[in-house]
Amino acid sequence: MLFLVRMEVDWPKDMDPEAGRALVEAERTYSQRLQRYGKWRHLWRIAGVFGNVSVFDVDSHDELHEILSNLPFFPYLNIEITPLARHPSRIDAPPAAPP
Amino acid sequence: MLFLVRMEVDWPKDMDPEAGRALVEAERTYSQRLQRYGKWRHLWRIAGVFGNVSVFDVDSHDELHEILSNLPFFPYLNIEITPLARHPSRIDAPPAAPP
Amino acid sequence: MLFLVRMEVDWPKDMDPEAGRALVEAERTYSQRLQRYGKWRHLWRIAGVFGNVSVFDVDSHDELHEILSNLPFFPYLNIEITPLARHPSRIDAPPAAPP
Amino acid sequence: MLFLVRMEVDWPKDMDPEAGRALVEAERTYSQRLQRYGKWRHLWRIAGVFGNVSVFDVDSHDELHEILSNLPFFPYLNIEITPLARHPSRIDAPPAAPP
Amino acid sequence: MLFLVRMEVDWPKDMDPEAGRALVEAERTYSQRLQRYGKWRHLWRIAGVFGNVSVFDVDSHDELHEILSNLPFFPYLNIEITPLARHPSRIDAPPAAPP
Amino acid sequence: MLFLVRMEVDWPKDMDPEAGRALVEAERTYSQRLQRYGKWRHLWRIAGVFGNVSVFDVDSHDELHEILSNLPFFPYLNIEITPLARHPSRIDAPPAAPP
Amino acid sequence: MLFLVRMEVDWPKDMDPEAGRALVEAERTYSQRLQRYGKWRHLWRIAGVFGNVSVFDVDSHDELHEILSNLPFFPYLNIEITPLARHPSRIDAPPAAPP
Amino acid sequence: MLFLVRMEVDWPKDMDPEAGRALVEAERTYSQRLQRYGKWRHLWRIAGVFGNVSVFDVDSHDELHEILSNLPFFPYLNIEITPLARHPSRIDAPPAAPP
Amino acid sequence: MLFLVRMEVDWPKDMDPEAGRALVEAERTYSQRLQRYGKWRHLWRIAGVFGNVSVFDVDSHDELHEILSNLPFFPYLNIEITPLARHPSRIDAPPAAPP
Amino acid sequence: MLFLVRMEVDWPKDMDPEAGRALVEAERTYSQRLQRYGKWRHLWRIAGVFGNVSVFDVDSHDELHEILSNLPFFPYLNIEITPLARHPSRIDAPPAAPP
Repeated sequence: MLFLVRMEVDWPKDMDPEAGRALVEAERTYSQRLQRYGKWRHLWRIAGVFGNVSVFDVDSHDELHEILSNLPFFPYLNIEITPLARHPSRIDAPPAAPP
Repeated sequence: MLFLVRMEVDWPKDMDPEAGRALVEAERTYSQRLQRYGKWRHLWRIAGVFGNVSVFDVDSHDELHEILSNLPFFPYLNIEITPLARHPSRIDAPPAAPP
Repeated sequence: MLFLVRMEVDWPKDMDPEAGRALVEAERTYSQRLQRYGKWRHLWRIAGVFGNVSVFDVDSHDELHEILSNLPFFPYLNIEITPLARHPSRIDAPPAAPP
Repeated sequence: MLFLVRMEVDWPKDMDPEAGRALVEAERTYSQRLQRYGKWRHLWRIAGVFGNVSVFDVDSHDELHEILSNLPFFPYLNIEITPLARHPSRIDAPPAAPP
Repeated sequence: MLFLVRMEVDWPKDMDPEAGRALVEAERTYSQRLQRYGKWRHLWRIAGVFGNVSVFDVDSHDELHEILSNLPFFPYLNIEITPLARHPSRIDAPPAAPP
Repeated sequence: MLFLVRMEVDWPKDMDPEAGRALVEAERTYSQRLQRYGKWRHLWRIAGVFGNVSVFDVDSHDELHEILSNLPFFPYLNIEITPLARHPSRIDAPPAAPP
Repeated sequence: MLFLVRMEVDWPKDMDPEAGRALVEAERTYSQRLQRYGKWRHLWRIAGVFGNVSVFDVDSHDELHEILSNLPFFPYLNIEITPLARHPSRIDAPPAAPP
Repeated sequence: MLFLVRMEVDWPKDMDPEAGRALVEAERTYSQRLQRYGKWRHLWRIAGVFGNVSVFDVDSHDELHEILSNLPFFPYLNIEITPLARHPSRIDAPPAAPP
Repeated sequence: MLFLVRMEVDWPKDMDPEAGRALVEAERTYSQRLQRYGKWRHLWRIAGVFGNVSVFDVDSHDELHEILSNLPFFPYLNIEITPLARHPSRIDAPPAAPP
Repeated sequence: MLFLVRMEVDWPKDMDPEAGRALVEAERTYSQRLQRYGKWRHLWRIAGVFGNVSVFDVDSHDELHEILSNLPFFPYLNIEITPLARHPSRIDAPPAAPP
């Protein structure tokens, strides 16, 4: 089951630099593990914004909430969620999707 | 160059049914041709809404405008465009992306 | 899988009264069938508004879209969808929920 | 008398962890007591958001304000209230409502 | 139980003048009956706007919906509803309230 | 001359409790004095919100600004002002208005 | 008593040209009469918009509503009203105000 | 060349009272000098709001920016700017404009 | 004096095709004449939207209003205007600006 | 490939003056280097606002993000991005564009 999730980061202005770097590293590790599991299907940077647009593939809302609320960045995120269904015009085998 | 494009259809209430079906068919044909060319990379239905979220892969803004403004649905579309860049945390070879 | 769905009706001012009554009847029949199937779990009227707040229990986004887009009122609906997960503070057996 | 209440938590970034845990515990206890009394009829987590959608069954606006303004989280809550009436299409005995 | 209700009229530009006058008369009669019953407690014109701010005193949400949805103007109204509770600073016997 | 005034309080999270109580007491005293003078005609709590809806009866905009800007809560208030005129459908002697 | 009033015109696309010219003429005559009476103190065109910003000097809200609701353009106007008070920093005799 | 400028003050809650008074005094002096030069044509208090509506008469956008960005309050201001043109219905010599 | 002007076209769904083409041609001719006069400095298409972003160089607000309100598309335009001043960091002779 | 980028600065109220001046200087140097390379094509001050409207000429979204996210002001910027395409009515050789 696919969800489009838009995340924009509201980074505290007084964040300690050292703590900030550690948080970024933790976020990267967390995200890459979920990408390898196939949960975090697509991850794009919104050009010009400290944020991303992603597509998650989960089995339930509880799992979606589990994944998002455990993001190291979660306390600093504004999140918008759009449930995605299959589009009737979609052709089955598009060319290999770029990243 | 990737763009996330959200389209919601403001379908005229007094649209002639016959003309409506023809327009839907034309939109499907137009979209599937672009999907086969690899221009229209992803196409998902927004659950509960007469609209879609798509990812386009184009070479210029002129090409993006060309593609969108020639959609048969274009006169009835509210369009939001987000330029996508590569995210630093993206792993290179995610599992085969579902549709 | 539960979704909170808020629907507000944008009823055409020039709707033919007879056609309007038929549409309302069709919407009632459609909704009550889904309520009996357990798909349409809760249905409340928003006081003072031609609209409702509902909770749907579906197995996929495709099913949610199928149900909503086939509502007789669908062409006249503004729809907001919120995916619901289990709240950690919910107690298991609340008193029998009123309608 | 039913109210749909949407609560989103604006948690202070500099909340002391210990105080935060105590507040969460107090919120849970407070909520579960009201659920057992049948005042707090439904409680769902909004997937991906530190917040919930609830249905309260109260006898007056004063009681509703009493309940909400005494929530331990109240100083950190953005609250939206929708008065719910009986929908004319609701069937009387829906299947046992899930949590 | 008191509700603040703000109503703004979206009057069709092509309303037949005769029908319009009849509708205004029906709305006046309907409103004045409810005022005499004490249901429609306060009724003020929003200066410069085809609309009003009112306070209704009803016994249930169903009754509130019944009253509002049967307003002759209802199909042309944008309605905002605010449930009112007793304010702790209110003194008991203010001077005779003006209209 | 009547004004509908909606006030929502944006209470600082780090307000010293003692100072907070003193401020609340000052606000109550200030408001009750104006209620006795007949300037602050109606005062209702917005259910579920730290705020109120009020009706003021003043002789000029300067007086309105004087009253509002001297509220002890003024630095923490988001204020919306609606000028009220006499509604043509209002009947002269409604039953004794409840508080 | 001064009010800042912003008016933007939502001119029907299918307005009969002849009727349109007559309406514009009526609006001009109506406005110029009020300017001569000193009721319509200032009248500026919003550059690039079919609308104006004005300052009215009236004795009551009823008079303000009377003036605005009898504008020939009233059915096509989106109106925003801001009550103006005397600013403590205003010097008494500014140079002759341009139109 | 006239501009309507609406300014609302977002006054820091932790502003040192002494510094605050000095800033208010500086703002008053600055504004009154510009009023005497005829640059700051109109200055009204928005009733109930810590802000003002003004009309500036400047020769260029650079001058407008110069004036506004050097306001002592500038770091705390939310500013909205509307370019004003001559309205075709304006009569030439309105009665002496009140302050 | 420079203005950034964003125009989005709200094209009537029932526009007669022939009349539509004539209007587009008139708009093009009007715009190109102003570009040759140096009034319409920059004109870009907003990719994916029936609209443009332009920079106008005019001597007064009256001239700006004259130019915009005489656009053949004016009745169908939503217009946003931003006054532009010289930026202190701008270098004097940037490389030849592309179109 | 051209992008219109609107940047508004949300400058921390408690920014150390010395650090602030250094940041402004760094932002100016960074911007002027990009202007000389032809990446930062246009840079205008929004009159009355601590912000600018710019046009960037980049080869990819990654480059756009690289440029914007490395602005010294980036942590304090609200950014809006509009992809620009060639407008069909643009004449080829406008008079020498002013800065």
